[in-house]
Amino acid sequence: MFDFTFHNPTRILFGKGAIARIREYIPQGARVLMTYGGGSIKRNGVYEQVQDALKDWQVWEYGGIEPNPRYETLMPAVELVRREGIDFLLAVGGGSVLDGTKFIAAAVPFEGEPWDILEKRAPVHAAVPLGAVLTLPGTGSEMNGYAVISHSAKRAKLAFGSPLVYPRFSALDPETTFSLPPRQTANGIVDTFVHVMEQYLTYPVDAPLQDRMAEAILLTLIEQAPRVMQNPTDYDARANIMWCATVALCGIVGVGVPQDWATHAIGHEITALYDIDHARTLAIVLPAVMQAKREAKRAKILQYAERVWDIREGDEEARIDAAIQRTREFFESVGIPTRLSAYGIGREAIPAIVSQLREHGMTALGEHGDITPEVAGSILELCL
Amino acid sequence: MFDFTFHNPTRILFGKGAIARIREYIPQGARVLMTYGGGSIKRNGVYEQVQDALKDWQVWEYGGIEPNPRYETLMPAVELVRREGIDFLLAVGGGSVLDGTKFIAAAVPFEGEPWDILEKRAPVHAAVPLGAVLTLPGTGSEMNGYAVISHSAKRAKLAFGSPLVYPRFSALDPETTFSLPPRQTANGIVDTFVHVMEQYLTYPVDAPLQDRMAEAILLTLIEQAPRVMQNPTDYDARANIMWCATVALCGIVGVGVPQDWATHAIGHEITALYDIDHARTLAIVLPAVMQAKREAKRAKILQYAERVWDIREGDEEARIDAAIQRTREFFESVGIPTRLSAYGIGREAIPAIVSQLREHGMTALGEHGDITPEVAGSILELCL
Repeated sequence: MFDFTFHNPTRILFGKGAIARIREYIPQGARVLMTYGGGSIKRNGVYEQVQDALKDWQVWEYGGIEPNPRYETLMPAVELVRREGIDFLLAVGGGSVLDGTKFIAAAVPFEGEPWDILEKRAPVHAAVPLGAVLTLPGTGSEMNGYAVISHSAKRAKLAFGSPLVYPRFSALDPETTFSLPPRQTANGIVDTFVHVMEQYLTYPVDAPLQDRMAEAILLTLIEQAPRVMQNPTDYDARANIMWCATVALCGIVGVGVPQDWATHAIGHEITALYDIDHARTLAIVLPAVMQAKREAKRAKILQYAERVWDIREGDEEARIDAAIQRTREFFESVGIPTRLSAYGIGREAIPAIVSQLREHGMTALGEHGDITPEVAGSILELCL
Repeated sequence: MFDFTFHNPTRILFGKGAIARIREYIPQGARVLMTYGGGSIKRNGVYEQVQDALKDWQVWEYGGIEPNPRYETLMPAVELVRREGIDFLLAVGGGSVLDGTKFIAAAVPFEGEPWDILEKRAPVHAAVPLGAVLTLPGTGSEMNGYAVISHSAKRAKLAFGSPLVYPRFSALDPETTFSLPPRQTANGIVDTFVHVMEQYLTYPVDAPLQDRMAEAILLTLIEQAPRVMQNPTDYDARANIMWCATVALCGIVGVGVPQDWATHAIGHEITALYDIDHARTLAIVLPAVMQAKREAKRAKILQYAERVWDIREGDEEARIDAAIQRTREFFESVGIPTRLSAYGIGREAIPAIVSQLREHGMTALGEHGDITPEVAGSILELCL
């Protein structure tokens, strides 16, 4: 096991009525900015629940934060917060709203051009405190200090992390996810699955508890996905999916082990160039990464095959092939295609994606740092 | 799944050299009390490492905190902290030192008789901040807000909990556990195992991730125990056991599910009356609780039998019997007897134990609150 530090100060309020409980954790007298996305919260009752919880505070609103939240959309909110002296942010929505709000939080006190936080990895020394009401599980942003932000003009999608942008609290009421469209439900499941795989499917370092906790999430997702896809108002299925998503990226399964994240890095470039849903890019790239790195990941793929998919027949190559195939089939089972061609993208796209990786400094990806842009190109060939 | 709140603000510093890193997290200029136990830290190098880390602080020392830390031992430390204006506590040792230090932390600002925190469940409104250097994994005290304190004069062993006594940080260097005697290593393994069982072996509430995470810890303990018993200086085995102990009681496997804790409550009375090691009392009581509550726990015992012990043959009764037997054998395999008779205690002890439970208000134990003192008596019959 590698040495590690684990510290996750976010308070999770989970269950029916969780939104009403946020009032216990917002500072008295705070000037609050409520951020949200495309307005679905005004149709499913969440907006009213949040307004009710905030009735003792002075509240500003900033809606319209889109999927893959854009720098251009967020900067006006940064100006609003500065102008109005707002001192608490409440993100209401899915991972994009949460990520965008984390960027606002870090950008407000930042001296200079806030995009440098993403592009130049400029350190974050301060942030406006924030809380969250999660309505779309998947990204895990509700219990970590990471955010991914896009820049339209630059066609870039980049991540930053800071301990200062952990939500002080996140309210997770599974009932708020009953009205999600199947596409978003499926995206969240695949996103969660791949978050675990990025922290699990590397090489063994004698860390069996982390391995088994990762497998616990994968097995639960596989078990619960059909329930929630078939019956979107199954409370326990929604609750289980929601909790899986949070645990997957709160840090607990990734401590003391190598991590990959090549699938995410390559996927981000596909989203930046072709505007394909984040989770869909992961469903395309992960099977190809498994195939391309089957030697380096051999021991862990075989463990995954046996423990997650109960694949015990055949020689090692056959079991690895079967594990990749089962992974692909799982993504397809929730309605997510796993080939670039299914999204109308062909071989001609590969040079642009590879070029973007190079431009963003993504030149040594994966747990061994050996996925160069050239290797990424060969992985993308396997995605066609 | 039940509704829940999860919040664990402790920072874990894990691995080789973790002790040196505590200096990053102790407030500058703090007046520090270093607490410890019987002095083993002066023989294994931990004392010197801590002294070195603390060289920029003014430090007081308070040693001699015993297993099952006693009110009578701790109160002089409370006086010392008050007298010297100490404002940070650093517990160096195992769960007893940590628990004792949590009591000191809560007792210092307490108005009135601090024992009321235990006996009368008087609320804790303030506490001196504390950190920890863990040298004996098992209790999980390094990452939670609980402590168990004994009172010799009253022959009582009682628990309290407060969010104010979570350690600010805990340093976990597996190398510090190399010199543990086999008895203490085994106690820690059994303690951890039973902590998980208290949160797992109840009744199903459709919370499969929590179940699988609990099973992940149990399977890892079963796998790693022989390694660490055979080779006490196996770093990875020590690291795995240490991390299991922390995760087991940091709250993550117990969110949203019913919990039992009858084994602990009954075990505490045995320790209070007969001074048997905490973990040993658990090893005696748990198999008897499983036997006595086999109907109420049926579904979970069968799941435990299959997933943890791979018991698939025979009818339900046979599989339950086998699961209880395997549990008992696991405890015995690390050298811990599982019958009261092995400790020289016979049937004549039962009335006193039952009477203590009644006296301490432990009259409705277990996940259904149906383990009355009379039922506890029948459980104790099964422990003979």
